[in-house]
Amino acid sequence: MNPIYLDYAATTPVDRDIAELAAKYMTREYYNPASAHACGQRALSLLENARAELADAIGCVPRELVFTSSGTEAVNLALKSITDGRVAVSAIEHDAALSCARHLESSGVAVDYIEPDEHGIITPKSLKAALKPDTRLVCVMAVNNIIGAVQPIKELAEIAHTAGALFFTDAVQAVNGTKINVKDSGVDMLCASGHKFYAPKGVGFLYARRGVKLAPQIEGGEQEYGLRAGTVDVPSACALVRAFIKAQAHVDEYNAHTEIVSDAFIKHLKYGKPIICPTRTNDIISVVFDGINGNRLAVALSMAGVCCSVGSACSAGSQTPPQTLLHMPVAAESSVRFSFGKRTSVAQAVRAARIVNETVQRFM
Amino acid sequence: MNPIYLDYAATTPVDRDIAELAAKYMTREYYNPASAHACGQRALSLLENARAELADAIGCVPRELVFTSSGTEAVNLALKSITDGRVAVSAIEHDAALSCARHLESSGVAVDYIEPDEHGIITPKSLKAALKPDTRLVCVMAVNNIIGAVQPIKELAEIAHTAGALFFTDAVQAVNGTKINVKDSGVDMLCASGHKFYAPKGVGFLYARRGVKLAPQIEGGEQEYGLRAGTVDVPSACALVRAFIKAQAHVDEYNAHTEIVSDAFIKHLKYGKPIICPTRTNDIISVVFDGINGNRLAVALSMAGVCCSVGSACSAGSQTPPQTLLHMPVAAESSVRFSFGKRTSVAQAVRAARIVNETVQRFM
Repeated sequence: MNPIYLDYAATTPVDRDIAELAAKYMTREYYNPASAHACGQRALSLLENARAELADAIGCVPRELVFTSSGTEAVNLALKSITDGRVAVSAIEHDAALSCARHLESSGVAVDYIEPDEHGIITPKSLKAALKPDTRLVCVMAVNNIIGAVQPIKELAEIAHTAGALFFTDAVQAVNGTKINVKDSGVDMLCASGHKFYAPKGVGFLYARRGVKLAPQIEGGEQEYGLRAGTVDVPSACALVRAFIKAQAHVDEYNAHTEIVSDAFIKHLKYGKPIICPTRTNDIISVVFDGINGNRLAVALSMAGVCCSVGSACSAGSQTPPQTLLHMPVAAESSVRFSFGKRTSVAQAVRAARIVNETVQRFM
Repeated sequence: MNPIYLDYAATTPVDRDIAELAAKYMTREYYNPASAHACGQRALSLLENARAELADAIGCVPRELVFTSSGTEAVNLALKSITDGRVAVSAIEHDAALSCARHLESSGVAVDYIEPDEHGIITPKSLKAALKPDTRLVCVMAVNNIIGAVQPIKELAEIAHTAGALFFTDAVQAVNGTKINVKDSGVDMLCASGHKFYAPKGVGFLYARRGVKLAPQIEGGEQEYGLRAGTVDVPSACALVRAFIKAQAHVDEYNAHTEIVSDAFIKHLKYGKPIICPTRTNDIISVVFDGINGNRLAVALSMAGVCCSVGSACSAGSQTPPQTLLHMPVAAESSVRFSFGKRTSVAQAVRAARIVNETVQRFM
């Protein structure tokens, strides 16, 4: 029997129509959009139409969007563009942001970490406590990748602005389950990654409000307004945009579906305490199994036919529990993350819960 | 009538079988290779099999290969890992290397430029003249992207090693027409880019010999031995490897074909002086049309149905002639580059030459 995949937060399958679009463009619309000739201009037109559609979808202008090779690259571009003063970074960011924060510290930019409350929420109060007169940038992810906490981004952005700082949100985990509009939320920078919303891997984007100064991290040609060198991957960018718009058009449906499957999963769990944050998406749930090592349990679950994780795939090599949980009053080392997607069925969720029950029993 | 595409050096179409492989993996083998569970391990196994095949193909071990999002990113990784001393860079490199060289200069690493001879060849003598006692790295591209000059990489690498420097070659333009083996050539680092050899855009690789210290330019997770953060794009990496092996298996056939079509093209040209370097590939030819502005001619040719370029697509925005030609005794501002691929037919080449003849006549 095929394993039950409950790790959609690590990556999603590419939808068939999106993969077909990418493959069609690879073979037929393969031209280099930087070429000045008619063939190149045809590719450029596809690229710029896609950029304009994405801009419309999130409430910005095309010039404010840079296509990157991943969410991680976009995070690097946003954070490493800061070269002096301080940045305030939530203590429960993804590894990408935390690694860049360490890079900033080593290059002379001071970093203040914003602590979450006991539910994993970055509160206005907590942000205010972290702000300093020379804070240039605040960085808080929109939806936490371990517990699905939806952060009060709009409120936090206002506080940052009042203090004279820019606000950057990593929305990599937010595209399926929340509506994204940079005008409404007031963020200055936002990034996302295709492979988290049923688009290909190897493509992401950074929105940076006009006036925000970015320093290119990959240098060479003048692609992407001189902010990101290298031949633009038009097939992937177009696939990303189509998948983004599709995901955003189905947010309500997605939330209704993931609520049903995650509820079914939780309801059938005999053991473990799900970490239920008051504002959260339904597609990610971390569960604490007291007295059991999360890493060992995840391995046993994989062998029993349930693919889930401890923390993000990006930090899967490490035996340290997820940073998010280390900053919360929970037994972090006993947690396992289950994440659901649009292909997860109720039957799978229930069967997975039963397998978890049986597996946990063997640990007791 | 469709335009005749003579800009294969800017980018190539993805072969149908390669695009199908990528699309199949996107929808079915989409798992995150960094995930510890069975599904993730399945993706990891595909990735590592591909890495091992590529290593076999070029004569290294898998641990020496890093997948990147492009040739440009690989060049950044190779060059920006140097943090002190000097580097010697050929004066006729691609924009990616020249931009990184300027970055190094601004960060305190001195750069010496190696001048080509009158044919566009970087000679041992010229390299020796550029070497200094504290030269850490020499960078010379394997096949020049403007005139197809095949550089004496093995000889140059030996000279660099004798002087105690590492040798890096950008082989982006070399995969279709030359056999690549890092053991035979003795290079310490080598990069390539999928979209130049009928694989998708958005993926490339860097070979770095064991012992060469690289500094990750994109930080985050521990992917690619900690040298390149971000979820690895397994479908693209596997597609790249399959296309690389295919291209290398057909080098002789490719050279025979591009010789026929480029000869046909040159033979039917009534005007212009083709720049024929003594050691060159047949797939790239720059032609100097005395007294005519190359940029204007390329635009007119595009309108007349021939898509060609002045210099690389990466520098298409600039009105400056290609750096390569500025370092040679030719009328650089009057040059146009024509590049041929495996889909170019003799009929296309002949028709293109006639269109060039007619278009040039209108300029006279």
